[in-house]
Amino acid sequence: MKFNIALLAGDGIGPEVIEQAVKVSDAVAKKFGHEITWRPALTGAAAIDAVGEPYPDETHEVCATSDAVLFGAIGHPKFDNDPSAPVRPEQGLLKMRKKLGLFANVRPTFTFPSLLDKSPLKQERIEGTDLVFLRELTGGIYFGEKGRRDEGETAFDNCVYTREEVQRLAKKGFELAMTRSKKLCCVDKANVLETSRLWRETVQAMEKDYPEVEVSYEFVDAVAMRLVQWPNSYDVLITENLFGDILTDEASVISGSMGLMPSASMGADIALFEPIHGSYPQATGLNIANPMATVLSAAMMFETAFNLPEEGQAIRDAVNKALAEGIVTEDLANGGKAYGTKEVGDWLAANI
Amino acid sequence: MKFNIALLAGDGIGPEVIEQAVKVSDAVAKKFGHEITWRPALTGAAAIDAVGEPYPDETHEVCATSDAVLFGAIGHPKFDNDPSAPVRPEQGLLKMRKKLGLFANVRPTFTFPSLLDKSPLKQERIEGTDLVFLRELTGGIYFGEKGRRDEGETAFDNCVYTREEVQRLAKKGFELAMTRSKKLCCVDKANVLETSRLWRETVQAMEKDYPEVEVSYEFVDAVAMRLVQWPNSYDVLITENLFGDILTDEASVISGSMGLMPSASMGADIALFEPIHGSYPQATGLNIANPMATVLSAAMMFETAFNLPEEGQAIRDAVNKALAEGIVTEDLANGGKAYGTKEVGDWLAANI
Ligand SMILES: CC(C)[C@H](C(=O)O)[C@@H](O)C(=O)O
Ligand SMILES: CC(C)[C@H](C(=O)O)[C@@H](O)C(=O)O
Repeated sequence: MKFNIALLAGDGIGPEVIEQAVKVSDAVAKKFGHEITWRPALTGAAAIDAVGEPYPDETHEVCATSDAVLFGAIGHPKFDNDPSAPVRPEQGLLKMRKKLGLFANVRPTFTFPSLLDKSPLKQERIEGTDLVFLRELTGGIYFGEKGRRDEGETAFDNCVYTREEVQRLAKKGFELAMTRSKKLCCVDKANVLETSRLWRETVQAMEKDYPEVEVSYEFVDAVAMRLVQWPNSYDVLITENLFGDILTDEASVISGSMGLMPSASMGADIALFEPIHGSYPQATGLNIANPMATVLSAAMMFETAFNLPEEGQAIRDAVNKALAEGIVTEDLANGGKAYGTKEVGDWLAANI
Repeated sequence: MKFNIALLAGDGIGPEVIEQAVKVSDAVAKKFGHEITWRPALTGAAAIDAVGEPYPDETHEVCATSDAVLFGAIGHPKFDNDPSAPVRPEQGLLKMRKKLGLFANVRPTFTFPSLLDKSPLKQERIEGTDLVFLRELTGGIYFGEKGRRDEGETAFDNCVYTREEVQRLAKKGFELAMTRSKKLCCVDKANVLETSRLWRETVQAMEKDYPEVEVSYEFVDAVAMRLVQWPNSYDVLITENLFGDILTDEASVISGSMGLMPSASMGADIALFEPIHGSYPQATGLNIANPMATVLSAAMMFETAFNLPEEGQAIRDAVNKALAEGIVTEDLANGGKAYGTKEVGDWLAANI
């Protein structure tokens, strides 16, 4: 098969880790007889510097006409702590999500037996954890009307959801639950928020279409607790944009494998794949960043966007083998030999 | 001195744990020569059952004319999972906060060396944790306009903050930081929300009035992570209502001492003190609930509302002694002898 893949390397360590994912994907394409055309485009601080815009129209054009988007990371310290700067990398991210219609952010948190000791949690708490968040990504308070009144003395942000927005996200949640253990948790704050009540009633009405799925409803504050206490009690969780922002980040650190966690953002027409870690500016250019999360994001791309599970599995197998043989960057080296970003990428490509 | 204290026992285990706090407070009053008049009033499901209202006007009258409020817990399973029920206990809670003007919720998370093994976190992660959240409690999305449009198909919740609301909360944060390690963290989502940008600019403008306090600004998602990774890197944190709801609950489970964590909610004229745990319906009437969080809330009451630190310390000393001697309820008994709620209360009162 032939694929066009938009390649958004972004800032910081983005370009370095993306390079390894490209290498590994090319090895997969070669082995399975596919042909990939990579279509690089600017985004983030890099795009602001080059053309004054974090998500330029040309970049959107490239993404919208590709079969998938592979994304590195964005964010640069020069924009930090200045949330009022007129142009910021994050605005590009939000614009991209909205314009590409990426309404469902899929964030798995799973564990690697050999990495359990990296978790801040005790082993018996984290063992066996394998959960997936579906975070709504193009609605809610992120995109509602916001502004000031009273000569700037009052600020407001409006959180809005339509039943349809909830339905399309929940549908993905039910479908995912059907391929897993058939347990779905709807996370809301229905004891306080009207939008949460809409979420809850919408999901409740969909239950009858998925009689095999056991649905539970939990308040966001309770989930923030139980994620730390008994993360392995969860399977598929669905939630709105802001709750998802907070909870998926909380979930990402419990496994101890943050440097390995991939993610997908799915729209009706296209999907984007990226590591959950940030642009890690301090490590830029040092050849020390762990490329495995980006490489595993490429695995998700083969599986989800191209419906090629074997190709994805080939990547996962190579990563597992690298972990078993200690072909890892310094974050996972445990005092043993640390390989460079590029060397890990080379090894993975050679082991496809 | 003479004090009138409104006594809101509430639901579930509320009445049992409140009874112990009364006993211990009375012992303190006797020892230090104070006189307490307890003024019981209805709240929560108990109030709904009795008068059809979770925070009746008579209860408000009692609270508003007292020197402090001691609160147990509210919530009853018959209202669970039915966030659309016309009258719910939580509404009483929100009404009470608003009518009493309890704008600052103070939630400490600290550790007891003897209880570190109860934490889901590894010992080296949790050791030495001693942080306090100040959560804004009467503004934000909890109290903004909310409702439906488009024949119920669209729901909205408005989040609103004024500079003044931020200032009075932040002032408490700066003042608290001055009595501790002079480190203050402002938690927001200023890269996305206009209300967060107001929070950040307001706190930034106040920095000059507290030159000794070192202020940091962190995004809510980053804090959700670092709370699990390095909780002991935090000291005083200030944040808005919804973020505070999520993060204080997350923080409460990391110490392993949830059954011991007190809290205060402060207004301009009155303050309320309550354990952070819920009404724990399954344990109601079984004489097994841990009364220590409520007893320590009474300690906070003496210290904060009455400015009587010695009286508060007498309670803390008794609790520490009980922990050291194993006079604890089953949640802390570790397979050893478990005392009843009442027996722990009696012991604490006798050891003041
Ligand atoms: C950078 C920021 C706007 C973004 C978000 O809040 O969605 C990030 O935290 C994320 O989760 O991808
Ligand atoms: C019961 C609920 C309305 C309340 C809140 O969200 O404030 C509770 O979670 C709390 O934190 O006191």
